[in-house]
Amino acid sequence: MPSLTAQDPNFDARCRDSFNRQPAMHLIGATISRLEPGFCEVELIRRPEVTQQHGFVHGGMVGMIADSAAGYAAYSLFPADATVLTVEYKLNLLAPANADRLLARSQVSKFGRTLTICSMDVVAVQADGRELACATGLATLMCLLGRPDAPPQK
Amino acid sequence: MPSLTAQDPNFDARCRDSFNRQPAMHLIGATISRLEPGFCEVELIRRPEVTQQHGFVHGGMVGMIADSAAGYAAYSLFPADATVLTVEYKLNLLAPANADRLLARSQVSKFGRTLTICSMDVVAVQADGRELACATGLATLMCLLGRPDAPPQK
Amino acid sequence: MPSLTAQDPNFDARCRDSFNRQPAMHLIGATISRLEPGFCEVELIRRPEVTQQHGFVHGGMVGMIADSAAGYAAYSLFPADATVLTVEYKLNLLAPANADRLLARSQVSKFGRTLTICSMDVVAVQADGRELACATGLATLMCLLGRPDAPPQK
Amino acid sequence: MPSLTAQDPNFDARCRDSFNRQPAMHLIGATISRLEPGFCEVELIRRPEVTQQHGFVHGGMVGMIADSAAGYAAYSLFPADATVLTVEYKLNLLAPANADRLLARSQVSKFGRTLTICSMDVVAVQADGRELACATGLATLMCLLGRPDAPPQK
Repeated sequence: MPSLTAQDPNFDARCRDSFNRQPAMHLIGATISRLEPGFCEVELIRRPEVTQQHGFVHGGMVGMIADSAAGYAAYSLFPADATVLTVEYKLNLLAPANADRLLARSQVSKFGRTLTICSMDVVAVQADGRELACATGLATLMCLLGRPDAPPQK
Repeated sequence: MPSLTAQDPNFDARCRDSFNRQPAMHLIGATISRLEPGFCEVELIRRPEVTQQHGFVHGGMVGMIADSAAGYAAYSLFPADATVLTVEYKLNLLAPANADRLLARSQVSKFGRTLTICSMDVVAVQADGRELACATGLATLMCLLGRPDAPPQK
Repeated sequence: MPSLTAQDPNFDARCRDSFNRQPAMHLIGATISRLEPGFCEVELIRRPEVTQQHGFVHGGMVGMIADSAAGYAAYSLFPADATVLTVEYKLNLLAPANADRLLARSQVSKFGRTLTICSMDVVAVQADGRELACATGLATLMCLLGRPDAPPQK
Repeated sequence: MPSLTAQDPNFDARCRDSFNRQPAMHLIGATISRLEPGFCEVELIRRPEVTQQHGFVHGGMVGMIADSAAGYAAYSLFPADATVLTVEYKLNLLAPANADRLLARSQVSKFGRTLTICSMDVVAVQADGRELACATGLATLMCLLGRPDAPPQK
């Protein structure tokens, strides 16, 4: 993997600010736990509200944090004056998300001017710190230039 | 499409009961709005809590209801003594979910003893009732026999 | 589905000409059997050379004709001065391709200036004319403007 | 990645024998270039017959060798008395396959009794030996027990 460089020196604040303006991420309790150029990790802590009928984190929540991690992995590489769209993603659910802490990690595999491809992996962190694979996937993200994600500064 | 028949005459109550035992669906406010053998429609009403930074319903929410509709479309055809697992899904996001009401519809394309394949379509219902396509996808679901989804009756 | 219109009145000849310049399609014996704006059907006749070890058409061949049908369904809608790239596709194999004639059909679901999404379905035509579903999928295609697919005319 | 163990000590011969009984792989000229428990590499040498109109290896050929590598990566872990089915796969095409030698590598990500998930990567080997990423994907394979792939020995 060639090392990836952010075009925008302010990428970290720009990504975290964008993430924090998403009410849906507040609703489920997801946060960005790690961010590097071309890489993003989103954390979700298990609360009863995000589970399914067997007490595991709902598969839909696993998908949400994977998709979000991919979006910000790609967005970290975009110019400041751009926004990111998810074109599509595919996710294989490998095991029930039976842990108090999930981490969705996404790494840019191929950065392009228009399209960026990211791998996604979600792990369930066990009480002893071991990580069990929950889901793996691929996402295609699109860069829309000239449409900054943030509202204009007053 | 050959017509599909539910093996379990009680499929409607079994699916709705399973859905209702998922706290994650309550958290986001999704409900089953239509259910037939091999078909499920999940409705999500836009509230600020389920949006992203531009006021549209968050793409992750679109994925959650699509995945859920596919799960119950498949589960409706399963025997009473079975549960359903999402093996994988792939979703193309076609347009921003800019409407007060989203409907995720899933139809079984191929029913199998072990694996069932479903198509998924999410539409944004406009104020005038027109439906705009938001997302389209495919899901692979697995039938686990001998593992009823519901807790034992007391 | 809104009706789709070809921007290039010469779309039919442009697509068939492009297809015919692909040696790989000649190698496997695939042909375009139907073409409309936003729709393409590719036919593959079973010969021993395209089978796997059980005498069915090889799954890879099923994927090849599905992908090709999607490419030309999209390409039919593109301006004359453009070429088409497959960004990604996902295919579910539903049943063995056990027939002497396969048809891969692809329909544009969403046409966009940059990206076009197509559904793909492959059927195995039985001796009595019935069609059995072999595969179903989705593809994302990209339009590259200003790069005509054909070599310059002399 | 936990190390993977073949259940069948004869896995290497069983996989290569199965591959060699596929006329479609002979037609395109693909061979197994490396095989380990849970891993398979398929090689395709560029000949004019496998190209598209610009002289690159046809994307459908890239898909064929990726899918095939995934099938044998999974099959290498199966018991002797089993066969393998591709349930579905998803492939992102990252760059034109512009090289005289392509390698499709697939690694089992998750081995299961019924379903096995594999990652797939296709690289174009440049004249100087460098590998450029052409495609990346994921595949879901199914193990069918009690149905040996090989014809009965006389």
